Amino acid sequence: MSVPDRTTVAIVGGGPAGLLLSHLLHSRGVDSVVLESRPRERVESRQRAGILEHGTVDALREVGAAARMDEKGMPHDGFAFHVHGERIHVDMAALTGRAVMIWAQTEVVKDLIVLRLEQGEPLLFDTEVLAVEKVDGPLSRDGEALVRYRGDDGAEHELRADVVVGADGFHGVARRAVPADAVRTFERVYPYSWLGILADAPPSSDELVYARHERGFALLSMRSPTVTRAYLQVPNGTDPASWSEEAIWDELAARTGLDDGSFTLNRGPITDVGVTPMRSFVAEPMRHGRLFLAGDAAHIVPPTGAKGLNLAVADVRVLAEAIAAWRTDGSQELLDAYSDTALARVWRGEHFSWTMTTMLHRDPDADPFDDRLALSHLQLVASSESYRTAIAENYRGVPLAGEHQSVPEHGQVLS
Amino acid sequence: MSVPDRTTVAIVGGGPAGLLLSHLLHSRGVDSVVLESRPRERVESRQRAGILEHGTVDALREVGAAARMDEKGMPHDGFAFHVHGERIHVDMAALTGRAVMIWAQTEVVKDLIVLRLEQGEPLLFDTEVLAVEKVDGPLSRDGEALVRYRGDDGAEHELRADVVVGADGFHGVARRAVPADAVRTFERVYPYSWLGILADAPPSSDELVYARHERGFALLSMRSPTVTRAYLQVPNGTDPASWSEEAIWDELAARTGLDDGSFTLNRGPITDVGVTPMRSFVAEPMRHGRLFLAGDAAHIVPPTGAKGLNLAVADVRVLAEAIAAWRTDGSQELLDAYSDTALARVWRGEHFSWTMTTMLHRDPDADPFDDRLALSHLQLVASSESYRTAIAENYRGVPLAGEHQSVPEHGQVLS
Repeated sequence: MSVPDRTTVAIVGGGPAGLLLSHLLHSRGVDSVVLESRPRERVESRQRAGILEHGTVDALREVGAAARMDEKGMPHDGFAFHVHGERIHVDMAALTGRAVMIWAQTEVVKDLIVLRLEQGEPLLFDTEVLAVEKVDGPLSRDGEALVRYRGDDGAEHELRADVVVGADGFHGVARRAVPADAVRTFERVYPYSWLGILADAPPSSDELVYARHERGFALLSMRSPTVTRAYLQVPNGTDPASWSEEAIWDELAARTGLDDGSFTLNRGPITDVGVTPMRSFVAEPMRHGRLFLAGDAAHIVPPTGAKGLNLAVADVRVLAEAIAAWRTDGSQELLDAYSDTALARVWRGEHFSWTMTTMLHRDPDADPFDDRLALSHLQLVASSESYRTAIAENYRGVPLAGEHQSVPEHGQVLS
Repeated sequence: MSVPDRTTVAIVGGGPAGLLLSHLLHSRGVDSVVLESRPRERVESRQRAGILEHGTVDALREVGAAARMDEKGMPHDGFAFHVHGERIHVDMAALTGRAVMIWAQTEVVKDLIVLRLEQGEPLLFDTEVLAVEKVDGPLSRDGEALVRYRGDDGAEHELRADVVVGADGFHGVARRAVPADAVRTFERVYPYSWLGILADAPPSSDELVYARHERGFALLSMRSPTVTRAYLQVPNGTDPASWSEEAIWDELAARTGLDDGSFTLNRGPITDVGVTPMRSFVAEPMRHGRLFLAGDAAHIVPPTGAKGLNLAVADVRVLAEAIAAWRTDGSQELLDAYSDTALARVWRGEHFSWTMTTMLHRDPDADPFDDRLALSHLQLVASSESYRTAIAENYRGVPLAGEHQSVPEHGQVLS
């Protein structure tokens, strides 16, 4: 593939946000270059999230990257909480009329890559962005922004662009192009991590199980009808090698079991183990001049609630519309609104993820009052259909701004 | 009034919980003695809560102490949040089909006292309970429990009872009769207090206003069409004398104002000022042998959400039924269930009060992430009708156990 030195949109990061953005722009007639620091094999093998909101599913279908998902993905109408041996079912479809799709992020990425390469559009792997420069100042069509990168040939190159999108994750280089006095950050680091496994075992339940137990949180998810994905709350700094396969299964069984004996955990060979810390993070605003941040580059949520990938997709859906509007008729209105529009949804996701996380985990530093609050919170889920509906609405995903299912009747609060 | 030395139920504390219990028992044919340490004038003049749930209103009507409330109380169909200058209305009646009653606790107490005295039933003021003794052991009708008290004659007396009810508040003597190893306590002290005022000013709004502002929380309530009750979040340890009348009104105006200028604060002479600290507290269980705890003696909530009085009333409604059942046919089932039944509701109230408190106050120790979470939480109230409904259900009060409006469909979680 020839390497262009000029594009409309330079997209730093070839994860799901950057790749999907490139397709949404392509279908709107806007050219872009995607620069990804890792090799393709690495991008396609990282185990990440697996729960897609309705809007995320729609976006994949829109760009034509949904065929395998529609064939092999598993639509889920609900999920369950297992709380100290009792079950609370959240019938999302009945409560909200919507479902979610179980389909791994790694599979989404594979399909987006194949499609991009089929189209012959620029997607550069093994390409390390060294710096994002000249993003200060107003929008123009003169390619004033500059991305300096080391290509897979080992040499340094420059890419000029009208707009740079930073979709290169929490540790990425793009956010560093924003001067420190032009960004405000919000952060929370949690006092626990997730030990995650992949196992050759059929899912133990048709739906996801979120467990709160005296011994801590557990989550039972799935990747396919034969592959279980599961997580255990563990102390920060846990070495995954310190957990034997048997100990992992025993702990999952202890935390997810039901007092009436109606739940049985399916066991099988564990094929992958890892430990993930938990963080909440937001950088405001999500734009600086000609640079726009999207996904993990601008915000991180703890994985409880499965909002990370879906927030990233929502960002680039808003951003693609805004860039296309600017390129079509010169209107900057949507681009000027991008940060506020995206952040309203981001903070909803941050609050929901924090709520689910603190409700379901046992904080080693918590006092007994906190523990009782969490149980009372789950009692509210069990006893109030309206509260269960609110939880289900957040889980399945709220509509994009301007894409209202139900219009707020009573005013809006700025966040 | 002659002072009895034997009764079925010795009620320690003549606040709303103890007084209402005496009436609920009387109407069920169960005799009791109420012992109150303060003089009648003091009991009738303390400024306390003023928002009555539907169930509390029903209980006052049931015992025949509701005539003045029904004449002068102000039914409220909703309330509003003012958040950084924007208004969110919670239409409780439309969302839940129920309203609340604005009627001061001090007026409730006056009516309950008058009724008790009219009936000629024992209600002893200026009567300091010195100790509750001999409450260990099973229930019997032999008057084995003992309440030692100093009467208004200055002499010590003994009252023998089958059952003792501790309704003497957080600092009361009754809870001390429970051995330390038989009780577990849960507590949270908040890093702010409420400066509360009474003022001769018509309410500024038809409904209550709960404000969150950068400068802190404020609440506008009312006692009558000519008397405003209002509160300001202030630092712990604040001397009320450090606030001038003008400073109080200016601060209330700053925190409750709306950006569109549609809200005007009515001012008037301030007739009462006080500072109240904020605490959450629960003692479990609420029973020890022949001693049953009710209201503030067993649990405290911060006043945000107005649950304190209503939880106390719910306790004694459950307790009166249970005592009457035991006296009627010897069944101990309801008394054995009392603590669990009451605590399920108590923890709902604790969680709701904590939720309202942390959502609406500015914690001086909070980091910016906490502030954004609170704003996002209020954004959820504004944007989700189902979440607003859940808030409204808690505000107007959930039914007593066994008094279902809507039956939980999906199991129950023990708290």
